[in-house]
Amino acid sequence: MENTEDNTPKQHTNPPASVAPADVESQSTSITSVLRRWKREDYLKKGQVVLRTIGFFFSLLSFIIMAANRHGDWKNFDQYEEYRYLLAIAILSTFYTIAQVLRQIHEFSTGKYLLPHQQLNLLDFAGDQIMAYLLLSASSTAIPLTNRMREGSDNIFTDSSSASISMGFFAFMAVALSALLSGYKLITQTYI
Amino acid sequence: MENTEDNTPKQHTNPPASVAPADVESQSTSITSVLRRWKREDYLKKGQVVLRTIGFFFSLLSFIIMAANRHGDWKNFDQYEEYRYLLAIAILSTFYTIAQVLRQIHEFSTGKYLLPHQQLNLLDFAGDQIMAYLLLSASSTAIPLTNRMREGSDNIFTDSSSASISMGFFAFMAVALSALLSGYKLITQTYI
Repeated sequence: MENTEDNTPKQHTNPPASVAPADVESQSTSITSVLRRWKREDYLKKGQVVLRTIGFFFSLLSFIIMAANRHGDWKNFDQYEEYRYLLAIAILSTFYTIAQVLRQIHEFSTGKYLLPHQQLNLLDFAGDQIMAYLLLSASSTAIPLTNRMREGSDNIFTDSSSASISMGFFAFMAVALSALLSGYKLITQTYI
Repeated sequence: MENTEDNTPKQHTNPPASVAPADVESQSTSITSVLRRWKREDYLKKGQVVLRTIGFFFSLLSFIIMAANRHGDWKNFDQYEEYRYLLAIAILSTFYTIAQVLRQIHEFSTGKYLLPHQQLNLLDFAGDQIMAYLLLSASSTAIPLTNRMREGSDNIFTDSSSASISMGFFAFMAVALSALLSGYKLITQTYI
């Protein structure tokens, strides 16, 4: 059984548990499993790009809506620490997600990686998970204040605040899903 | 090479990538790798029990401190939705963590599992991750209100509130770490 392509690295990582240890069979199954793994990693990367792009748009919206939320007197977002916190995290998340998307597109087009795979995957996961926690924390923090203001009066200031908070939550969901994918990539990485 | 113990299941999951496909060698390395995996899974389970026990104690403290936080007039926790939210999540987390710890101790002592491994691992991970998000959300929500009250006056009510919030954060950290372990267990599970 030497008619296999030579440019396929013959690694034996993770063959299905049901494979009999016969040499010929395991050789061919390990090659198909490697091909399957490559395809799966490709899907994962594309999924991450999509989720982070979604996260980027929602973060950007949250950031812009909150930053424009100045209507004079007590209706300025910067008088409330909750809204300042949300704005700060939305800005951070905007930069983080766009940086990750650009890095991944750069990797797709050139095939070059800024760091070794292992460190990249770790950074990916830690970054996504921490960003998800921050977005959730900032969005939930801003809710009670908005609620209390709306009991009094419902105006453009409170409406913008709620819009910004909702966008923050959507960004959280996208980034949290991306963190799941990153975690999966981190654990199933191959050490070549 | 038939002198291997018969009570060791001959699964070929995840041998190290450097193994040459010679039959004899791969047989013995796969057995040591299985033993190593068992030991690792054992460590993971123990780590989860420890982290969830820590999470249980902090949730319980957060719950008790907040529930006892009634000092008359405006100094009752139940007049503020933030504190009610934190109390609710602390109670939920207390029950969740103690249930998981008791379940795991039951598994250790009897070797019986309530559900198939795969479903258990999935439930474990989803539960831990959602609980971590809820704890973080509840703790961060309660901070600005407490901050604002402390600007006016610093009394036993605000002190108890901050104590309860801190305990909530510690519980979050323990449960978030447990979620990492659960995620690892979920992905590296064997499909026997």
